[in-house]
Amino acid sequence: MVTPALIGVDWGSTSLRAFLLDADGSVLQEHAAAKGASTLHGHPAFVAALDEVAGAWRRAQPALPLLACGMVGSQHGWLDVPYVRTAAGAADLAAKLAQPSDTALHIVPGVLCDDGKLPPDVMRGEETQIVGALAQHPQLADSCIVLPGTHSKWTHVAQGAIVRFATHMTGELYAVLRQHSVLGRLMPPEVTPDAQAFLRGVAAARDHGDLGLPHQLFAVRSLGVTAQLPHAALAEYLSGLLIGHELRAGLAWRAAHGLREQPLALVGAAPLCERYQLALGHFGQPAHLVLDNTAPAGLLALARAARLLS
Amino acid sequence: MVTPALIGVDWGSTSLRAFLLDADGSVLQEHAAAKGASTLHGHPAFVAALDEVAGAWRRAQPALPLLACGMVGSQHGWLDVPYVRTAAGAADLAAKLAQPSDTALHIVPGVLCDDGKLPPDVMRGEETQIVGALAQHPQLADSCIVLPGTHSKWTHVAQGAIVRFATHMTGELYAVLRQHSVLGRLMPPEVTPDAQAFLRGVAAARDHGDLGLPHQLFAVRSLGVTAQLPHAALAEYLSGLLIGHELRAGLAWRAAHGLREQPLALVGAAPLCERYQLALGHFGQPAHLVLDNTAPAGLLALARAARLLS
Repeated sequence: MVTPALIGVDWGSTSLRAFLLDADGSVLQEHAAAKGASTLHGHPAFVAALDEVAGAWRRAQPALPLLACGMVGSQHGWLDVPYVRTAAGAADLAAKLAQPSDTALHIVPGVLCDDGKLPPDVMRGEETQIVGALAQHPQLADSCIVLPGTHSKWTHVAQGAIVRFATHMTGELYAVLRQHSVLGRLMPPEVTPDAQAFLRGVAAARDHGDLGLPHQLFAVRSLGVTAQLPHAALAEYLSGLLIGHELRAGLAWRAAHGLREQPLALVGAAPLCERYQLALGHFGQPAHLVLDNTAPAGLLALARAARLLS
Repeated sequence: MVTPALIGVDWGSTSLRAFLLDADGSVLQEHAAAKGASTLHGHPAFVAALDEVAGAWRRAQPALPLLACGMVGSQHGWLDVPYVRTAAGAADLAAKLAQPSDTALHIVPGVLCDDGKLPPDVMRGEETQIVGALAQHPQLADSCIVLPGTHSKWTHVAQGAIVRFATHMTGELYAVLRQHSVLGRLMPPEVTPDAQAFLRGVAAARDHGDLGLPHQLFAVRSLGVTAQLPHAALAEYLSGLLIGHELRAGLAWRAAHGLREQPLALVGAAPLCERYQLALGHFGQPAHLVLDNTAPAGLLALARAARLLS
């Protein structure tokens, strides 16, 4: 029988997932609940949510260490854990774990990127996924790691540490424009997958992005109004346009920081990574590595670095 | 006593304004109602709305001609008036007025810009403001006319005709991001005017716009979270960032079409034009002319070109 070594918790704004992990990082069991950090208020609510997803495991093995990452450590979460500044590697993060009072839970700090010239940038949760990707794939110690999502992160990793990163709020732009702008009005409620319309949006950003996103977005409407694109294809065109603008800027950022010869990795949910990989191919720069959620592996690596494991 | 010559109607998606005009284009009286074209459904609703703002004038002078511009002529308005293709001057527009059946109302067509290479672009209402600006300022016959708004229009005018244009959905982006995205969460409900924060956003777009709008938008949050900008200033920073991205692309578009030596004019509501002029100055390219609403002058010029005036 395999022995559990850690309860790892991926606790974002809107979701909560707990993993029972063995010492190799294998997920033995998994529990999820709709108890995102932004939906909970006050210490008892967090205690109850943690008990809901991890209580049974804890009662069976009271000595198991507990480690969480994500927005649970933000000012609107359970405990405001101060950001660690770049460069931040696993040891830097492990040295700054924090615990809500009267709990056994440790929380991973987020990372702050602030060179004093450009506006600062922040991450919470992605640092753990990056640590997990590095634990599984040592060749990413000097690389560009992209984590697509509501707030995509482009990360420059050097000598195993996060040295800088840039957030693109691509996923959120897609959601709010689709739900709340004039662009959504022509779109049917269900999205029909349409790689051709998606890549047409990607190509518009790639080839004519200097016309500006505020202008190119309006084409989602005018292509529909003039019937040059079926209404059912407009959501995919919008997705391609937004991801295309992210890649246009992200790939230029990657080149500006001398990373063109380093590995490029995508980390995240498989369907979204597939979409990004398709778009990266359209830019002629496909990712070398595509990884599914690496948060469990990152939690284990950080727990080990912090000597929480028995 | 001055003799009325025309009832002009500026009938947009969300607002309806009627003007009693004399033969010089002076506004003798003005009525407004919250009866935008997108809020009305069916012929009788439009008839009633028109009567609400212009009925008294019509009963006093039944022979007065009536001319409307704007979304009233769209597929979701009173009558779907086909777009006139660029190049479109006053005579082209006047030749294609259309009338809903059993009414005395004429409606100005919108304009379609479609070179077959880039996605098409459309306007409805702005063409009339442009005709008005040209009627009042003949030196704009070869110029770049910018109409800021929910959907800003950058227009290339040559020999008195609209030859091409580009829409930027800047105003709508501001509204949806403020109301529906994570960026709005830190902002207090009321916006405090703050030229310094606004220009900081403009400068970010001007100097670092190649980092991409999806990335730069996230700074609205990270500047707030890290307390590098007071929460009360974040809305103005967002406004500056979005207008800055519009200007960055719009001024490059203007240069690409050889218009750097031609006059640059702003046409629209005074507070918004003032904001754009401030930003244009920050780009070192202030507008030569700033005009308030020129729709009444445009309606009169088009009525004259169509020989509707007695």
